Amino acid sequence: MNLHQQALTEYLAAFITGLFQTGVRDVVISPGSRSTPLALLMVEHQEINTYIDIDERSAGFFALGLAKASKSPVVLLCTSGTAAANYFPAVVEANLSRVPLLVLTADRPHELRDVGAPQAINQLHLYGHHVKWFAEMALPENSAEQITYSKMVARRAVKECKSPVPGPVHVNFPLREPLLPALEPYPFSEEQADYEIIAGELALPQAALERIAREISQYQKGLIICGPMDQPSFSNAAIRLAEKLAFPILADPLSQLRLDNSVIIDSYDAILKTDRVLAEFQPDFILRFGAMPVSKPLSLFMKKYRGIPHFIVDGQAGWRDPYHLGTKVIQMDETAFCQQLTNYVKKNENNEWLSQWQQVDQLAKTAIKAHMSQEQELEEGKVFYELFPRLPKDSTIFVGNSMPIRDVDTFFHKNNQGITVMANRGANGIDGVVSTALGASVYQQPLFLLIGDLSFFHDMNGLLAAKLYELNMTIILVNNDGGGIFSYLPQAESKQHFEVLFGTPTGLDFQHAVEMYHGQYEKVTDWEHFSKAIKSAASYKGLNVIEIPTDRAKNLTSHRKMWEQVSREITTYLQGVEK
Amino acid sequence: MNLHQQALTEYLAAFITGLFQTGVRDVVISPGSRSTPLALLMVEHQEINTYIDIDERSAGFFALGLAKASKSPVVLLCTSGTAAANYFPAVVEANLSRVPLLVLTADRPHELRDVGAPQAINQLHLYGHHVKWFAEMALPENSAEQITYSKMVARRAVKECKSPVPGPVHVNFPLREPLLPALEPYPFSEEQADYEIIAGELALPQAALERIAREISQYQKGLIICGPMDQPSFSNAAIRLAEKLAFPILADPLSQLRLDNSVIIDSYDAILKTDRVLAEFQPDFILRFGAMPVSKPLSLFMKKYRGIPHFIVDGQAGWRDPYHLGTKVIQMDETAFCQQLTNYVKKNENNEWLSQWQQVDQLAKTAIKAHMSQEQELEEGKVFYELFPRLPKDSTIFVGNSMPIRDVDTFFHKNNQGITVMANRGANGIDGVVSTALGASVYQQPLFLLIGDLSFFHDMNGLLAAKLYELNMTIILVNNDGGGIFSYLPQAESKQHFEVLFGTPTGLDFQHAVEMYHGQYEKVTDWEHFSKAIKSAASYKGLNVIEIPTDRAKNLTSHRKMWEQVSREITTYLQGVEK
Repeated sequence: MNLHQQALTEYLAAFITGLFQTGVRDVVISPGSRSTPLALLMVEHQEINTYIDIDERSAGFFALGLAKASKSPVVLLCTSGTAAANYFPAVVEANLSRVPLLVLTADRPHELRDVGAPQAINQLHLYGHHVKWFAEMALPENSAEQITYSKMVARRAVKECKSPVPGPVHVNFPLREPLLPALEPYPFSEEQADYEIIAGELALPQAALERIAREISQYQKGLIICGPMDQPSFSNAAIRLAEKLAFPILADPLSQLRLDNSVIIDSYDAILKTDRVLAEFQPDFILRFGAMPVSKPLSLFMKKYRGIPHFIVDGQAGWRDPYHLGTKVIQMDETAFCQQLTNYVKKNENNEWLSQWQQVDQLAKTAIKAHMSQEQELEEGKVFYELFPRLPKDSTIFVGNSMPIRDVDTFFHKNNQGITVMANRGANGIDGVVSTALGASVYQQPLFLLIGDLSFFHDMNGLLAAKLYELNMTIILVNNDGGGIFSYLPQAESKQHFEVLFGTPTGLDFQHAVEMYHGQYEKVTDWEHFSKAIKSAASYKGLNVIEIPTDRAKNLTSHRKMWEQVSREITTYLQGVEK
Repeated sequence: MNLHQQALTEYLAAFITGLFQTGVRDVVISPGSRSTPLALLMVEHQEINTYIDIDERSAGFFALGLAKASKSPVVLLCTSGTAAANYFPAVVEANLSRVPLLVLTADRPHELRDVGAPQAINQLHLYGHHVKWFAEMALPENSAEQITYSKMVARRAVKECKSPVPGPVHVNFPLREPLLPALEPYPFSEEQADYEIIAGELALPQAALERIAREISQYQKGLIICGPMDQPSFSNAAIRLAEKLAFPILADPLSQLRLDNSVIIDSYDAILKTDRVLAEFQPDFILRFGAMPVSKPLSLFMKKYRGIPHFIVDGQAGWRDPYHLGTKVIQMDETAFCQQLTNYVKKNENNEWLSQWQQVDQLAKTAIKAHMSQEQELEEGKVFYELFPRLPKDSTIFVGNSMPIRDVDTFFHKNNQGITVMANRGANGIDGVVSTALGASVYQQPLFLLIGDLSFFHDMNGLLAAKLYELNMTIILVNNDGGGIFSYLPQAESKQHFEVLFGTPTGLDFQHAVEMYHGQYEKVTDWEHFSKAIKSAASYKGLNVIEIPTDRAKNLTSHRKMWEQVSREITTYLQGVEK
């Protein structure tokens, strides 16, 4: 071992030790030359899992999925050049959805930068404002100081990934040739777990909580609105609070709160399309948790009641208020807030407000059921309606953006099945969804990905990980050959250029793609077939794609008919109440 | 038409008019909602070509290919969110390879930014230091001032794309709902072509040129080294200069200078692997044009003679000197420089130096030919060796990075066939190559893409454009099932983890992918088959993929054997000369 190799090995091994000490277990590597020493050392580390993913864009989202599901920082590693630029979409999503992702990029050393050297791009602050922290490493040295420095940057990078607000971090490594580290003797020492980051949570003093509780206790028609949330004990805490206040919880499908409890309202997206509900269900208070819910009618409803007391709780001190409705911003861990507040609020003995919501919620479900029983042909809404009762207990569903998440909002009703619902709702992109779901599938089984054809197309390369790592995932591919969501938007009215710009049919037969990745493929022809396919999916190992061909125009008509039916039922009911 | 719609339409139509006036003809659009008004107006414009490409990463590279081939700025348009982040790899490449690419991103208006609104990411300076210019537009208004402003930003954006140094530009449009523009009456006026940008070129006064000519005229053993160049009259001008100086031109395959002229030396990559050549062919002067040549032996050769006068000419005032060898940086248009300098330099009557290079160049070719005649099995070098003489006249080859560009360097010899050679040599990425080639194929026919399996895999989504726009391209897919170039690097010596980290076999049968995109696919089994496939490719329309399965270990052995044979021949010759 020469001095260069020794410095390279010890400095980078120290960095990896720092990562391991602070909890990093999963590393996703995209092959390349400049990153050779880091890649070899990562693979050599006996307690770190490595995944190789050739397309860096897919790799970025695969790492995102691992991090979302494991709730731990995941490392991404690539070589210099555009490889690193391909991580950008996943970095942007990780930043907005608060997922700890640590990007390590190998770089040319200083003398090869900005001078026309091959595969040299400006990697300093490559991801701009989209990372929580950026560090440019010094060149490898193995003095005691530099070994400590290397280890400390790793530890700090993990810390910055996790708190105060989780998100992506970027560390850039200038490395000189030769790039081979020494793998013998084993480059990692025993003292790997001697470091700990003990993260605090935002908390409020008792007096502040009491003051908030006094105010909330005055309100009679409060609503608790929960957007995407991902804290194991939050659901229970929120339900206890809602029960004591007799306030309904409008629970987004990603809130993990669509549980079989009477305070949970899950059909509000359908309900709030009815004018009379909008007018008559006037809340006097809103308490909101999590990111913004997917439902547009709910947003319109909240905007209609601009000016009422509207509290937004964010345990990571973010600013999630797109319509500028908040009247109090409360910075406290959401679970702790609910638990402690429950002790201080007055029990509300009046159930009338809650019961009104429960009534219309039930009416909406009955109307949806009636509508679905008439729907014989393959149609998107019914895919979701039929799917959920058939899912195995404790399944995870990963939901694509655009139409699938909206259909899940409409058709995924509260239950006791222990279903986890995941999605990329930071930037709501249709990109990277296949890879994120595959990353999540490493930790969450069984996993079903519900996705449209354009989003599936966008990240077909992600399927390589399923083949190489023999991952288990069932994809419910809803194929309306194009951009279904645009049919619901105003541009659909103006027929001119619509199909070419928004419909964008690709005419692809995805069976070819699935076969290329050695997956099992089935195209569903009717509902009985669908039901059988879902049933056998539960026991199938590997990649399994169930495609349901649907028609964009028919989907739109069916959805509209259903919403009209819901509105009719609710309006009739409310007229009855009035009399 | 209401006031909002009128302002939206007139303001954006003015912008598009500004683009059209300054030469924009091609627009690549990725579907989305926020970008609706820009997309509809672009498609509505009767003299602008629009291409819809769903995967924004592929769209970015497709636009890059259009711009490279048309030598005009091409517009990219997408909606808000991660869509824009997917353009990043193409933006990075455009910046380093000096290609005019104008990225327009639709954005949420100010009140929806950084507040948790859907599909809202921070798009200000999204591409950081990787664009030449960034502008954030004002919200649409249709006062005379704002219409002029909108048009002027468009004109300026095009100008910044083109000069002083061509490259990518980013303009961000905050847009409020409703997003539908009025398409009637036709929103564009007749005054579309009333604006012009007359770009200057860097020039030197006569005295400076005379001084340079006097110095150069002193040298006896000068070398002209031409890296990637893309100016139509440069080749001729450089050859005239070289002839007068009796200096060889070492011509990179991307210099467009591998023409059948006696001053052109094209086998230097093989020649300079021979120790005696390195030692004995000592130049006393180097004149360099273009980006860095691909050949590593050439770089080592230049580095060996650090200290000799080494002039670098760059017409766009860049800094392309990765090994810090330059002694004069000359900022002048390369073609004009060669043309004018030829008038001032003294004619060199001594042909000895040139003739030495010609001799070894010829020897290298004879040795390569001898080697190839023995090579019976499918092997990568021979794919290229056999391909070039069979290409139709005036073909374009688009060359993938990693191994293909190196094999083109070795086997694409000077000729009179009018072959254009293109590649993405800014950051040398394996990403986006399929799409860039398809973009180029719109302007360059017939076009052959020479690509390895990993690079093909990386941008398979790019093939959708071939299907949707019925583009004509033949892909020579050299499939060694993994990362072939790593076998030539030091990591191949350390067998540990090599196959998992660097070999990275995917085991994919690409026939499935080609069929999905309705292409013609053929897997070559022997050289006769290859020859026939190339022959019929010349007349085939549409997407045509000719796959050649090769073996990484065998490729390495064959290349090494060939280089040894070249070295032996040259060494023997030089020993003879010595006696």
